[in-house]
Amino acid sequence: MSSIEAWIVKAPKQSFVRQQIDLDPLASDDVEIQVEHCGLCHSDLSVRNNEWGTSRFPAVLGHEVVGRISEVGATVKGLQVGQRVGVGWNCGSCMFCRQCMSGQHHLCAQVRATIVGHRGGFASHVRSHWAWALPIPEKLAPADTGPLLCGGITVFNPLAMYATPTSRVGIVGIGGLGHMALKFAAAFGCDVTAFTSNESKFDEARSFGANHVVASRDSAAIKKLAGTFDLLIISVPVPLDWDALIGSLAPNGRMHVVGAVLQPIPVKAFSLIFAQRSISGSPTGAPVDMGTMLEFAARHNVTPQTEHFPMSRINDAFERLESGQARYRIVLDADF
Amino acid sequence: MSSIEAWIVKAPKQSFVRQQIDLDPLASDDVEIQVEHCGLCHSDLSVRNNEWGTSRFPAVLGHEVVGRISEVGATVKGLQVGQRVGVGWNCGSCMFCRQCMSGQHHLCAQVRATIVGHRGGFASHVRSHWAWALPIPEKLAPADTGPLLCGGITVFNPLAMYATPTSRVGIVGIGGLGHMALKFAAAFGCDVTAFTSNESKFDEARSFGANHVVASRDSAAIKKLAGTFDLLIISVPVPLDWDALIGSLAPNGRMHVVGAVLQPIPVKAFSLIFAQRSISGSPTGAPVDMGTMLEFAARHNVTPQTEHFPMSRINDAFERLESGQARYRIVLDADF
Repeated sequence: MSSIEAWIVKAPKQSFVRQQIDLDPLASDDVEIQVEHCGLCHSDLSVRNNEWGTSRFPAVLGHEVVGRISEVGATVKGLQVGQRVGVGWNCGSCMFCRQCMSGQHHLCAQVRATIVGHRGGFASHVRSHWAWALPIPEKLAPADTGPLLCGGITVFNPLAMYATPTSRVGIVGIGGLGHMALKFAAAFGCDVTAFTSNESKFDEARSFGANHVVASRDSAAIKKLAGTFDLLIISVPVPLDWDALIGSLAPNGRMHVVGAVLQPIPVKAFSLIFAQRSISGSPTGAPVDMGTMLEFAARHNVTPQTEHFPMSRINDAFERLESGQARYRIVLDADF
Repeated sequence: MSSIEAWIVKAPKQSFVRQQIDLDPLASDDVEIQVEHCGLCHSDLSVRNNEWGTSRFPAVLGHEVVGRISEVGATVKGLQVGQRVGVGWNCGSCMFCRQCMSGQHHLCAQVRATIVGHRGGFASHVRSHWAWALPIPEKLAPADTGPLLCGGITVFNPLAMYATPTSRVGIVGIGGLGHMALKFAAAFGCDVTAFTSNESKFDEARSFGANHVVASRDSAAIKKLAGTFDLLIISVPVPLDWDALIGSLAPNGRMHVVGAVLQPIPVKAFSLIFAQRSISGSPTGAPVDMGTMLEFAARHNVTPQTEHFPMSRINDAFERLESGQARYRIVLDADF
């Protein structure tokens, strides 16, 4: 395409407006994808509001894209025009550093974020390096697969790295990421505990696969679980009772942070030392991890619970997300 | 023995006085060891001064013991009278919990500390559960082996768990623990960087095996190493420039705390997430780990650099340790 239609935001916290954008020729390693659906992730909101101070405007957001390849660059490998693919938080990396060459492309220092300094998926078309455009398995419904490509891989990767079917896993925060984490952890065969501040989500958390549900602001209830969890995944960017949560880890247990809480977490050395615990974090995953995740999701029928809006109602969708009402992931369907 | 001679401290921060103590009969699972040498560890000082609020007085300190077995209980396994053994920070555990049954005895909730509510090695004799009395390899000099049993295993275990010969390892704090960590990391074949606040230790750190030396209070120098280390071992209980140190970890790097810093470490979630880093801690090690460590130390000639005092000069020795002058580990030789 020499030009695309896109929903752009011109400055922090502004509404989106539709605009036609002229494009440079497609880079030789890139594919262009005609967008069918694009999930709405909490980090789209953070970037729109410039909460991290790294946003660049005007911005085209949207990084849980599913669509069909409309054009391939001259040196693209393994993908064809017409193929259905997805793109997540990242849409490129240098491909030759130590991280890229060891299959850890998501840790490349030059990794290209889809919505920071690059145009994302709330548009008629989006571009991506071929390595970061993942073929979508036939078994997955295209309309509900977008959220797997950012939120899904973000919680799948710590499970893939650290959980086994015998693990006791706690998922803290049952929103867009957390509800997918419950489904993945249940499919892994783990004993799964959901922590949520919202009592109205207790039953749904069980329906997603939680064996147990705990109120995440009930410090006394968390303290009763001292020494329990092999893995806790913190999926929400909010301050929590960190001492109680770290104390709920079993010996050799790990608290893993994927929600980008801005306040530093105060960690007591003794609570790590005595029970040989770890605290860690990770960002999304590499292309190979994403492929593994998609294959696993297709095999175990793990899909997000979604609400759909036509993309022309993008401003309504952001308002609903910001008000905390989304159950559990919003997907915008392209209607250009 | 129905009675022993011991150096006891009656209240926090008091001097040691020699005293005869009458004992109960030996427990059936315990051995009694005639003390030959006992290392002086910083945690002896912390317990004497009740810095952690967990001390019990009157106390007999000393938990880096080497000596010969003088008596064995009725159900002791694998040890004989006359055999040379060592005892470290722990001298017992329940032997039937999940941790003990999986070879992680040091994480047993009932683990018995040698110097808290139990009489330690600054005495003519010390008692230990048979499982925690480790045979000393012939190749190791008994007079200098005590410090391996607490300080040594404390820094060996994170290397054994997380380092490989290709790892870039930083040792922060070059004291009793740190200088042994340098020797072990060099013997592991790692690329080793020493961090010390004391410039007079730079050359010695190299002699212990450091390939590089950095001033630990020089934040600018640490920041230049951003993204470097696979493993940082924090061996000193002092506040550091945590942001710079965590930033010096490579992707997938780990900062591991064995020095019991009392102030919480403020950890920024983003600095864990983007480079997929971990922060962790561990206490000493299990009996099997200690056996592995002793065998490795014997094979690679890893011994602490020690200063010896007769045990009757225990008060002088504590004063030297407290003043920060010990180079690098004090050992008291029994002279009852």
